[in-house]
Amino acid sequence: MNELWQRYQDWLYYHAALGLYLDVSRMRFEASLLASLEPRFVRAFQEMDALEKGAIANPDENRMVGHYWLRAPELAPTAELQRAIVAGIEQIEAFVQKIHSGALHPPLAPKFTDILSIGIGGSALGPQFVAGALAPQKPPLGIHFIDNTDPAGIDRVLDGLKDRLGRTLVLVTSKSGGTPEAHNGMVEVQHAYQVQGLDFGRHALAITMPNSRLDSLARSQNWLERFAMFDWVGGRTSELSAVGLLPAALQGIDIRAMLAGARQMDEATRLASIRGNPAALLAMSWYYGSDGRGSKDMVVLPYKDSLLLFSRYLQQLVMESLGKEKDRDGQLVRQGIAVYGNKGSTDQHAYVQQLREGVPNFFLTFIEVLEDRQGPSIELEPGVTSGDYLSGLLQGTRQALYENRRDSITLTISRVDPRSVGAIIALYERAVGFYGSLVNINAYDQPGVEAGKKAAASILELQKRILQVLQSSAQPMPLATLAQKAGTPEQIEAIYKIVRHLEANRRGVALAGDRSRPDSLLVSVG
Amino acid sequence: MNELWQRYQDWLYYHAALGLYLDVSRMRFEASLLASLEPRFVRAFQEMDALEKGAIANPDENRMVGHYWLRAPELAPTAELQRAIVAGIEQIEAFVQKIHSGALHPPLAPKFTDILSIGIGGSALGPQFVAGALAPQKPPLGIHFIDNTDPAGIDRVLDGLKDRLGRTLVLVTSKSGGTPEAHNGMVEVQHAYQVQGLDFGRHALAITMPNSRLDSLARSQNWLERFAMFDWVGGRTSELSAVGLLPAALQGIDIRAMLAGARQMDEATRLASIRGNPAALLAMSWYYGSDGRGSKDMVVLPYKDSLLLFSRYLQQLVMESLGKEKDRDGQLVRQGIAVYGNKGSTDQHAYVQQLREGVPNFFLTFIEVLEDRQGPSIELEPGVTSGDYLSGLLQGTRQALYENRRDSITLTISRVDPRSVGAIIALYERAVGFYGSLVNINAYDQPGVEAGKKAAASILELQKRILQVLQSSAQPMPLATLAQKAGTPEQIEAIYKIVRHLEANRRGVALAGDRSRPDSLLVSVG
Repeated sequence: MNELWQRYQDWLYYHAALGLYLDVSRMRFEASLLASLEPRFVRAFQEMDALEKGAIANPDENRMVGHYWLRAPELAPTAELQRAIVAGIEQIEAFVQKIHSGALHPPLAPKFTDILSIGIGGSALGPQFVAGALAPQKPPLGIHFIDNTDPAGIDRVLDGLKDRLGRTLVLVTSKSGGTPEAHNGMVEVQHAYQVQGLDFGRHALAITMPNSRLDSLARSQNWLERFAMFDWVGGRTSELSAVGLLPAALQGIDIRAMLAGARQMDEATRLASIRGNPAALLAMSWYYGSDGRGSKDMVVLPYKDSLLLFSRYLQQLVMESLGKEKDRDGQLVRQGIAVYGNKGSTDQHAYVQQLREGVPNFFLTFIEVLEDRQGPSIELEPGVTSGDYLSGLLQGTRQALYENRRDSITLTISRVDPRSVGAIIALYERAVGFYGSLVNINAYDQPGVEAGKKAAASILELQKRILQVLQSSAQPMPLATLAQKAGTPEQIEAIYKIVRHLEANRRGVALAGDRSRPDSLLVSVG
Repeated sequence: MNELWQRYQDWLYYHAALGLYLDVSRMRFEASLLASLEPRFVRAFQEMDALEKGAIANPDENRMVGHYWLRAPELAPTAELQRAIVAGIEQIEAFVQKIHSGALHPPLAPKFTDILSIGIGGSALGPQFVAGALAPQKPPLGIHFIDNTDPAGIDRVLDGLKDRLGRTLVLVTSKSGGTPEAHNGMVEVQHAYQVQGLDFGRHALAITMPNSRLDSLARSQNWLERFAMFDWVGGRTSELSAVGLLPAALQGIDIRAMLAGARQMDEATRLASIRGNPAALLAMSWYYGSDGRGSKDMVVLPYKDSLLLFSRYLQQLVMESLGKEKDRDGQLVRQGIAVYGNKGSTDQHAYVQQLREGVPNFFLTFIEVLEDRQGPSIELEPGVTSGDYLSGLLQGTRQALYENRRDSITLTISRVDPRSVGAIIALYERAVGFYGSLVNINAYDQPGVEAGKKAAASILELQKRILQVLQSSAQPMPLATLAQKAGTPEQIEAIYKIVRHLEANRRGVALAGDRSRPDSLLVSVG
């Protein structure tokens, strides 16, 4: 009679302990898809099992992939690793306790009041998402982020903290200890402490791999504490390592509940059954939705302000994991799924016009939160609250889009709390892993990130050379001459950009001529 | 010799007075594209000209489209309109002067210290973007936003302002005066004022069309002031109307400079020449990049923290304008261009892996800001600053992506200031208008937004009916019975969602049974 209602119920996944529902009924796959994907899922479940047992899952870097062990230390493949995980969490709790009680306090104040987190990518997005989702209204320490090497952005954060630097705990997070953005941020912040005559080391913490460049620096400068990152945890899956847990605990967020939620979801997603495993259902839906080759984008719409950054967090997790040129057999595949989204219903007033009527190049994920708020709501009219509107807008949009042949997944949680946030992090980590197996790519490396870093480094080398040439020349010269003298005539455009940038920042380089015709410009020092 | 450098210079657009460069050389179009698009551009320039002269450009709503007049009142088609625009700006300035001086102050404090802006979509994204880009570190009034009907989100903002509600100016922005999200936010905020025994009307301002529901309310409650929205300004192009100018001016941002920047850009983009008109160059590049049918996404990467929200602002402007089912002749075209992005270099650590190596379903726009910061930079090593890294990362990424056949546009501004922000807003408004002409769609309506609102309203109606049925029934009943009694058996899934949501919010509805099998549930009141 009501086929859609039957389909809804047939596919509904429910996790009772977590109060979490996953609905894939509005993805228009046929039941036969299950059968056709079955062999791939058999492999995916096996590979996940091997990965959890410590197989080398990231051959490029010759390392294991063990983020699941973070919430189930007993599964780690050696007793030493198990002890290290447990000790890591205990170290965080003991440290945070000292900070909250004031037993460890800054030289000139009774307590630390603020956290300044310096890190980028995997070292920033998770902590930012979790702070937005879970930080209490008045946290024991408020958190601020420097997640870029933008001087004006750094100044803005430092200006805002100016009067409180003496009460601020500085967290420097860099797995390798050599990420330029994090290093630059640290040097800028160190300088700000120096200017105020404050002892940076009495405020600083490092989260990094033991014996990294950052670790050595922290040790030599006698920083407050060093927290270990594990080589078997990738940046984009590091939220439940010290990277995410330390700032969360400092803000008063229950990290044991986050870990417990992730652990429960991990258990649920170990089931070797597509229908009974929510991460498998997600991976299957993505496969269907993007033809297994990224032909459509994944639009993620959480209908809850506090989850605004979840789509950005997923953007990293999904795109960095799945966006790969070659498959595991070396074949050119150019895989990936583009992810974007902000929050509902706000986005309905921004771009749902296009989703509803325009180019049908996407599938959606709605994220629904059943509890509207803590405490009762006022009524806008008899029997209707603000939360009913939000709920109605989600339902209405899902329905209207479906009728227009735009497919969607709906993930429902009871409330936004540490347990559910841990659970959804774990759910998507596992779905990404499965999807990598389905399309036969390595979901755990990121070879393309290195290339960008190298390209930037070569620009900086070029800048140094250009400055040398300019400083040894008395006469203004055209760009072509400058490029020639630097021995890199083919780099003329890059050189033009470099000198234009130096000039704009009053760095002793001047340009004269018609700016609409770069070839006409004369470059000089002064 | 160096073909790319020649191509770079050939296509470079430079606006001397604005210090703005546009580089489309890394879009791989052939010069012949220009010729083939010429007839469409002739039409686009003519249509833009007619629009600026007051033609009915939005036939659906039978209205003119006049956002360009906001910064050139003398171009408005009647003297009455011209006077209204000028008077509107003067009203803002006079009002803001009274607020800043304290001549107009809250009943119980000498000055207003905070702004609470209530509005969604076009009434929020522009003000949010501009606050992030331009608000001084210590603005005369700090701004906060309620841009959704999420009860927990509203609570969070109100909790944060609790001690300052008595010094807060509440801006309610809704063009039609009937947007549910804005209305709900207003009612919630009104309630918070009531709870504290504060007189809401002594704190409230309305920005709305004269004689709207909101306007009447504001008048009847004697609010502090009412600012007019014009029916010929759409929400997504309203940043340079009272919607954007009032909050900007309250935060101490130079709105005359914003208007002047937009005006200069408008003048530059009136030129009926593709090569000489930066908005035409953008529209042509988008056409090339997305095959004139949205086949690729537009990824927008501003390398500057303060421009983080620009991509979200553009997401609305571009997707709501271009995402259309039918063209102006009624043909099914499903147009649009998906837009996403956050900021560089941060995104390099999030998803540039996929952009570089993965599915090539996008083209990029880099936004470069030449000035790194106000004042000098420290050196990280001799001759190298944080800003050099940011600049190098942009150049390196652009180059690496291009070599991998990922095309990009680069927009360069000297610094982020009111003039340049006004200019880039105007640049993209015009580019969107041209693109609409190129692909023959109406870029000024949004028929799909209404549909979502209607769907939501029907869910709320259904909720009322369900509550009535439940309240008149003594016995718990299955969902099927409830749906039957409500006279809407086909709506059983919607009804299930409604009662599940009501139950989660302790709204006098209870469910019993196996939650993984909705058909097994019994619904009762109590």
